[in-house]
Amino acid sequence: MTSRIETPAVLVDLDLARRNVEKFQAYADQNGLAVRPHIKTHKLPQMAEMQLDAGAIGITCQKVSEAEAMVAASDRITDVLITYNIIGEAKIARLAGLNDKLRLSVVADNAVVVDGLSAFFGKLEKLLTVLVECNTGANRCGVSTPEEAAALAQRIAAAPGLVFGGLMTYPPVGAAAAVQDFMTKARDLIEASGIAVPVITSGGTPSMMDAAEAPIVTEYRPGTYIYNDRSLVERGACGWEDCALTVLATVVSVPAPNRAIVDAGTKTLTSDLFGQTGYGHVLGRPDIAIDTLSEEHGRLVSQGEIGLTVGQRIRIVPNHACVVVNMVDEVQIIRGEEFVESWPVVARGRIT
Amino acid sequence: MTSRIETPAVLVDLDLARRNVEKFQAYADQNGLAVRPHIKTHKLPQMAEMQLDAGAIGITCQKVSEAEAMVAASDRITDVLITYNIIGEAKIARLAGLNDKLRLSVVADNAVVVDGLSAFFGKLEKLLTVLVECNTGANRCGVSTPEEAAALAQRIAAAPGLVFGGLMTYPPVGAAAAVQDFMTKARDLIEASGIAVPVITSGGTPSMMDAAEAPIVTEYRPGTYIYNDRSLVERGACGWEDCALTVLATVVSVPAPNRAIVDAGTKTLTSDLFGQTGYGHVLGRPDIAIDTLSEEHGRLVSQGEIGLTVGQRIRIVPNHACVVVNMVDEVQIIRGEEFVESWPVVARGRIT
Repeated sequence: MTSRIETPAVLVDLDLARRNVEKFQAYADQNGLAVRPHIKTHKLPQMAEMQLDAGAIGITCQKVSEAEAMVAASDRITDVLITYNIIGEAKIARLAGLNDKLRLSVVADNAVVVDGLSAFFGKLEKLLTVLVECNTGANRCGVSTPEEAAALAQRIAAAPGLVFGGLMTYPPVGAAAAVQDFMTKARDLIEASGIAVPVITSGGTPSMMDAAEAPIVTEYRPGTYIYNDRSLVERGACGWEDCALTVLATVVSVPAPNRAIVDAGTKTLTSDLFGQTGYGHVLGRPDIAIDTLSEEHGRLVSQGEIGLTVGQRIRIVPNHACVVVNMVDEVQIIRGEEFVESWPVVARGRIT
Repeated sequence: MTSRIETPAVLVDLDLARRNVEKFQAYADQNGLAVRPHIKTHKLPQMAEMQLDAGAIGITCQKVSEAEAMVAASDRITDVLITYNIIGEAKIARLAGLNDKLRLSVVADNAVVVDGLSAFFGKLEKLLTVLVECNTGANRCGVSTPEEAAALAQRIAAAPGLVFGGLMTYPPVGAAAAVQDFMTKARDLIEASGIAVPVITSGGTPSMMDAAEAPIVTEYRPGTYIYNDRSLVERGACGWEDCALTVLATVVSVPAPNRAIVDAGTKTLTSDLFGQTGYGHVLGRPDIAIDTLSEEHGRLVSQGEIGLTVGQRIRIVPNHACVVVNMVDEVQIIRGEEFVESWPVVARGRIT
């Protein structure tokens, strides 16, 4: 199978991906959570459709262009949340283009963003749904307190062209209690001012099987769960056998008894360590470390003899699946040992 | 100027790039070195042509597909060295396609690669030129000793379909003495067996202005020099004013007095630290650190007030220019503050 594929290549096992999707959907269904997967991890319309088939209520995107690419590739995508502060007339006009065609929501964590959206949408007929992004400990974007969340919700509700859509967060791992606390206070304040809070949306694959520990959350946005990766295995969230995405690479040199070089470097695996030592896991060879990467070379080292030969192919579970997908123009779809076909990564590189 | 460009964007200043190219060409000319730039840093036919115009004798590529993309985009590219071990009939057949059209060389550091190339080219009319890759301290690819270099050179010379093209290395920084020593011994051994050593080729931008300290080297293959980056500035190899490639990003949130979020994350800047602390340098704001990146967010922190506002644009010198180029489908060509046009990164993602 794999000998027909040129290396380095990103392989995606369709059956494992489907199994991962269905497993979380089952947990979410049991716990009354809506699933709105983050498509950044696959950037493929076929996978989005699989997630919708399994029961997802829509998709999450991070940038306007990422949403545009997915929507253009599948007319089954009719509900999109862009979890980003959108700024500038050009980007906001593109939001309007999407909003005309489907159910669109965005987030905001500050008045400048809200006012910019309102200035544009206030002149249009169809309202834009805006959620407030809340900082529940990750210290990235997000209002810092429930009081600030309520103030911004009121601003959205009062703003021409906009409707308040709820509360959103991207919490740190294991922060269910903080999410429950923040969101409860924010919701109560907002409802007290006469505004409904239709959605409370959280995310993050590492904590996804604890999502029900923040029962105020109505919707969950996992991304990496569809493929898994080394960082999740090392956290105990899944096993190697649950990793749907692997990198196929060829040994191009064995220059020393304990060293081999493969044709996958940072331009395939990226330099994301994501909390790990070394740049990936070689399936079947836990004794091997990928200790350094150049752009197009991966260096493998071992304590004893490396036991690899020039021309041999290996499969690597990367530290972080989402970023690997974004390195390549297409992924190679497999089912076990059988090559199926190549799928173009339609939303690759969509950063604006 | 920059307000017309959607962010995040990769800006490339044409005049600075040309100045960088001409500066190294002048040094090389003064020191009798041929220049064979590594096009991985730009992946643009226009920049390759600028390098040829300045006096480069050909180009260097890292992968077969990278070479194919560049050759297809410019008929002025007629001399290509692929500094990689090429394995497998599919890839070797593609080499033959290139070899038919232009002067092509590849490298090898082991007999399996040499024998594979010979098995294919031995049936063809036009010989393939193969250099021996030598390990002069980087401990990546390369034969380990001058004796092994000589043995492999003899194997190439004797092999059907191949001609020995010389010695190649990619040394660690500051290894000119090791390069001189290894290459002198290897050359002497090879010449003693009656085989000429037409080319001795070295590379690496950080050491390029010391290239003449290994006078046995006939050709130099710098890559990053055309753009420079933070890693080179921090080494003292150049100044911020010599950095032709910058990332334009917009501040999307200022959630705390000493924290701002911009729309450039690892999917633009990559997580390459390349020996630095933090993920890039904010031009004009040495007091700001980019302390963490998510895939689409960059977090900026400062000791005091961050002094940025939502909607403001900043320019970031990335840690490592070569990998940033490979993240985007096009770069925005500028001249000072003037936007010129977009150029497609024709060899982006060419990893096979």
